[in-house]
Amino acid sequence: MCDFTRVRTDLQTLNRQKLDQASELLLSTDIDAWITFVRETSGGGDPVLPLILEGGLTWQSALIVTRAGRKIAVVGNYDADPLIAAGNWDAVVPYVQDIEPALRETLLQEVDHRPVRVGVNYSPDDVMADGLTHGMYLLLREYLAGEEFDILSAAPLVLRLRAQKTDEELRRMTSAIRETEAIFARMREWAKIGVSERTVYNEIQSLIDSRGFGYSWARVGNPIVNSGPDSMIGHGIPSSTIMIEPGHVFHIDLGLIVEGYASDIQRCWYVPHPDESSAPGDVVQGLQAVVASIDAAAQVLRPGVPGWEVDAAARTEIQRWGYPEYMHAVGHQVGRMAHDGGTILGPRWARYGKTPDMQVEPREVYTLELGVTLPGRGYIGIEEMVLVSEAGCQFLTERQTSMPLL
Amino acid sequence: MCDFTRVRTDLQTLNRQKLDQASELLLSTDIDAWITFVRETSGGGDPVLPLILEGGLTWQSALIVTRAGRKIAVVGNYDADPLIAAGNWDAVVPYVQDIEPALRETLLQEVDHRPVRVGVNYSPDDVMADGLTHGMYLLLREYLAGEEFDILSAAPLVLRLRAQKTDEELRRMTSAIRETEAIFARMREWAKIGVSERTVYNEIQSLIDSRGFGYSWARVGNPIVNSGPDSMIGHGIPSSTIMIEPGHVFHIDLGLIVEGYASDIQRCWYVPHPDESSAPGDVVQGLQAVVASIDAAAQVLRPGVPGWEVDAAARTEIQRWGYPEYMHAVGHQVGRMAHDGGTILGPRWARYGKTPDMQVEPREVYTLELGVTLPGRGYIGIEEMVLVSEAGCQFLTERQTSMPLL
Repeated sequence: MCDFTRVRTDLQTLNRQKLDQASELLLSTDIDAWITFVRETSGGGDPVLPLILEGGLTWQSALIVTRAGRKIAVVGNYDADPLIAAGNWDAVVPYVQDIEPALRETLLQEVDHRPVRVGVNYSPDDVMADGLTHGMYLLLREYLAGEEFDILSAAPLVLRLRAQKTDEELRRMTSAIRETEAIFARMREWAKIGVSERTVYNEIQSLIDSRGFGYSWARVGNPIVNSGPDSMIGHGIPSSTIMIEPGHVFHIDLGLIVEGYASDIQRCWYVPHPDESSAPGDVVQGLQAVVASIDAAAQVLRPGVPGWEVDAAARTEIQRWGYPEYMHAVGHQVGRMAHDGGTILGPRWARYGKTPDMQVEPREVYTLELGVTLPGRGYIGIEEMVLVSEAGCQFLTERQTSMPLL
Repeated sequence: MCDFTRVRTDLQTLNRQKLDQASELLLSTDIDAWITFVRETSGGGDPVLPLILEGGLTWQSALIVTRAGRKIAVVGNYDADPLIAAGNWDAVVPYVQDIEPALRETLLQEVDHRPVRVGVNYSPDDVMADGLTHGMYLLLREYLAGEEFDILSAAPLVLRLRAQKTDEELRRMTSAIRETEAIFARMREWAKIGVSERTVYNEIQSLIDSRGFGYSWARVGNPIVNSGPDSMIGHGIPSSTIMIEPGHVFHIDLGLIVEGYASDIQRCWYVPHPDESSAPGDVVQGLQAVVASIDAAAQVLRPGVPGWEVDAAARTEIQRWGYPEYMHAVGHQVGRMAHDGGTILGPRWARYGKTPDMQVEPREVYTLELGVTLPGRGYIGIEEMVLVSEAGCQFLTERQTSMPLL
């Protein structure tokens, strides 16, 4: 229980740091006031919310950061006390019946510029900057009708706020990575010949639950467990009839949440026949191709590069080795969730919108991931996590560069 | 692990039942095709999703129910297998690069009517029917541009789908209620004179976590624990410096999630001085007023009545007893979450939008809740849960009608 108190305090400090970061980032946009506009956040809510607020909000609430660096929360009367107690807000403005007058007045008082350029969280391209629902957008347009207000997308701000990790955020992510690696290190305890994918999945989930960790994507499909060539690759659910067999590749994709921050790592093993002391040639070659393609991406990954260039390096390399190109992006950002939005290290497919054209920036954390499917063997997939620094990138994970035996 | 398999199977059955219910409800709207349009659902997602799908979706996905009763999922290639395995979809249409052509073709093939009236999940009034983000709405408008398509709100369908509980949903809600009542029955083990609000909160959360239950609103503020007159009423966080003291009222608001369905119940106790064998007159009278006001609401609650009339009955009654009116609605629907959207039993305040004007329908589950603050004593609050039947309503909770001693 002492621990819980500590984490709460940490969270409020982290929220304060992110609010300060937001007010700095505002200066490089043309937004006068950034509003996170939410209600009934227990039903889901804006993905930006955990960065700036601990706990939930019930009635329509406007969390505002102004260009002058002021942080103001306009919230229902019953939601006001915890926000005041948190101490992160310069002003908490409670209302009882109707948020409209309180919201308009607050904005007009706080911002000199006319019309007030109000940035809100929507983006066709990026789910993590797209927390405002369409119904709430319609309401806000009604509340801020008239010439005094302009409503625009705050995506450029929100994406940077999520992506540029503070030291405290990096500490937490490293902790999530170390815990994930500790689970991989114990894989041989569970993954044995004759055991089903589902059993391994159950064992890993039991361990995660007992440690009180969260899942960085939906629990039902986390970890992904693939044993051999008949397994469902992708976002499938582990099978209770597919067993671990000699001659096959065994592959895990696992993501934890520790202290609110995520990991997302893939590892693979070869299941030897009794007479084998190392992985056979086709498996070793597949692994080398995957490692070399991740290398190729890492060498291109640095501030200022558009995402698609990093993907193209890996995509070219894997084909140079004679394998087909992968049907996904080579990397995505990680933060609060495994898929954390912003720049995608991916091809310029319509599915990715404009995100592969966006530039890599310092302090962003990406995955580098791809795999090859070997006939009769299964899926050789590796996913590493890297931090972008001024000069290039550094691996946060302990890299997989060879094929261990299970 | 066997249990987990069972719950999964149940969930898929429940999903199928809700999809069938959706296709029936479609007939009373002017929608040709209802689309739940989502992406990266691990980041939050549409609150309607758990009703119709187990697990998550990664790329842009359109879950479609047509007027002809067909259920079709247009999803990214890696998301297709689990949906096929679930067996709830007449067709699963995978795409690799771009959802637009697959989505347009599917809709034009499946629906004869022109323009195809496409219902999507947005609503200024109701958070639970407002799962479509503004960015996704803009994308969909782009994808379905042209005279062949009309986009409208599916709120009338979505609200009924959430609100009208199937037998299986009612079984699960009853189970959540019984587990909540079992925790209240043990309150004297934790809530003792000299113990802080925070300690009671920690004890209850430990029990909830050890049983594997969820929280029907944000864990940080659940349960709400109020001891005496200095406590934060509303959505506050329990204090570690406010202790349980004789002469005070002790109040809990607790909501669990069991098998995916929620409870939301308030109970209160009087903390006697050593020489007291029952609650004093002012406390007894306060309790009677609250119980009578809940009675008044229950007597009005039946199919066809608008929500505000139920609220007005309780609001009038509590003032008839000489207490101030409460600053919230007397009831809300409960389902997947504590606050589950749809008709609100509340006053016609701007904050509630049109929801108090909506009519009560059979098979809906509501809370009936209100309280009075007694100077020097604390908050006397009660919250019951009721099911609307053809003739009126029945209490799902075992009612609190007297003031127990702690």
